[in-house]
Amino acid sequence: MPDQPAFVLVRPQMGENIGAAARAMWNFGLDRMRVVAPRDGWPNPKAVAMASGAGRLLDNAPFYDTLPDALGDCTYVFATTARPRGLTKPVFTPEAAMDEARTRLAHGEKVAVMFGPERAGLENDDIIRANAIISVPVNPDFPSLNLAQCVLLTAYEWRRRTLPAPARSDEMAGTEPATGIEVERLAQHYEERLDQAGFFFPEAKAESMKRTLRNLWSRMPLTRADVQTLHGMMRQMVRWKERGE
Amino acid sequence: MPDQPAFVLVRPQMGENIGAAARAMWNFGLDRMRVVAPRDGWPNPKAVAMASGAGRLLDNAPFYDTLPDALGDCTYVFATTARPRGLTKPVFTPEAAMDEARTRLAHGEKVAVMFGPERAGLENDDIIRANAIISVPVNPDFPSLNLAQCVLLTAYEWRRRTLPAPARSDEMAGTEPATGIEVERLAQHYEERLDQAGFFFPEAKAESMKRTLRNLWSRMPLTRADVQTLHGMMRQMVRWKERGE
Repeated sequence: MPDQPAFVLVRPQMGENIGAAARAMWNFGLDRMRVVAPRDGWPNPKAVAMASGAGRLLDNAPFYDTLPDALGDCTYVFATTARPRGLTKPVFTPEAAMDEARTRLAHGEKVAVMFGPERAGLENDDIIRANAIISVPVNPDFPSLNLAQCVLLTAYEWRRRTLPAPARSDEMAGTEPATGIEVERLAQHYEERLDQAGFFFPEAKAESMKRTLRNLWSRMPLTRADVQTLHGMMRQMVRWKERGE
Repeated sequence: MPDQPAFVLVRPQMGENIGAAARAMWNFGLDRMRVVAPRDGWPNPKAVAMASGAGRLLDNAPFYDTLPDALGDCTYVFATTARPRGLTKPVFTPEAAMDEARTRLAHGEKVAVMFGPERAGLENDDIIRANAIISVPVNPDFPSLNLAQCVLLTAYEWRRRTLPAPARSDEMAGTEPATGIEVERLAQHYEERLDQAGFFFPEAKAESMKRTLRNLWSRMPLTRADVQTLHGMMRQMVRWKERGE
């Protein structure tokens, strides 16, 4: 696991939101929170109650009176903002920002991400201390993300860009994909029995119907277990017929 | 804007969470919600209160008694799950799932994403109706995402993969990047004045100090406004010196 960016909550207001931010960080494996001048003091019992399984982040979170103190050891700082601020500053998507953070951390830099108070976000006096801005590309008609949501999306991108998951995997539940010969035998089994049952009718269409059925089997993502189930279904239909009830 | 996937809330419990899910959808431009058998009936006043600016989604959300009814017109359905379920099924990241959804929608398919009730998520009886699973790659030591967070991350990926934002842009606040000749003149201005001031000392080091300063200017991402500010600072230092106070 590479070194991590610190997430700096600047003048957070509600303890519940601090706790929810801690949970959102830990959901994606981040545990370096810093807290600057929280409205209701520190530690905050409501934050602890909300954080539940992520309470350790709050126990370990350093507390600072001022933002310059909190950023004192950082070499590269991002500020999250919901709207343009009329400052000359590079603006990154969360994805690009976390790529940048990962690269800088890998070179030994100390990286922080600032999140503003719930009501109005970071002030321009805070943002001018940042090297760059992170802006989540939201619906411009409804851009309101709350503090914990902004933390969640940034932490999600950190994990997504740092520990990439396979785009697609397959839960196989104890089975595995059927092999060519298994699908071939299944197709033969069905073809024989359906032939006996008079399914391929009229004669002129029989070959086309058989091709359609072959194509159906090969198009299905069949497992060995599926093939056994389908064999069993057909055998049972034959047994039922043979019982002659 | 391409056609959208429907987000289907299956047996949601708290109205507040339904409202928060509506907000999270609309934050990323999605407005097709479906609701199946909500615990507290439908419409739900607490959902409406929480949704605030996204209340229209709830007004327009069709209500269904059963999941098969809700999925009746869909050709491809995703189920969101937090943990493996022992079912044989493809598993996508949110990103890959929304790519798949976009491709299928572009070919005229109807796509839905199911989200389970808050307490325990979708049941296996729900998931077997899905073509594929979406699993958010969370910290395995702390995988708990709530309903609105799961909706938020999926909707975020929809927008990210459908309306890609530039990874990096630049807020320029009415200015633009400085040109080569502007930076050259700035470098000359500083070099001349600093030479007069005796900054390049000792003589043996002067050339190296000048090179270092040239390199500093070219390394900075200067704007035209920055260049004017820096010229102004130097002129003022010279004026102050000339006043001889």
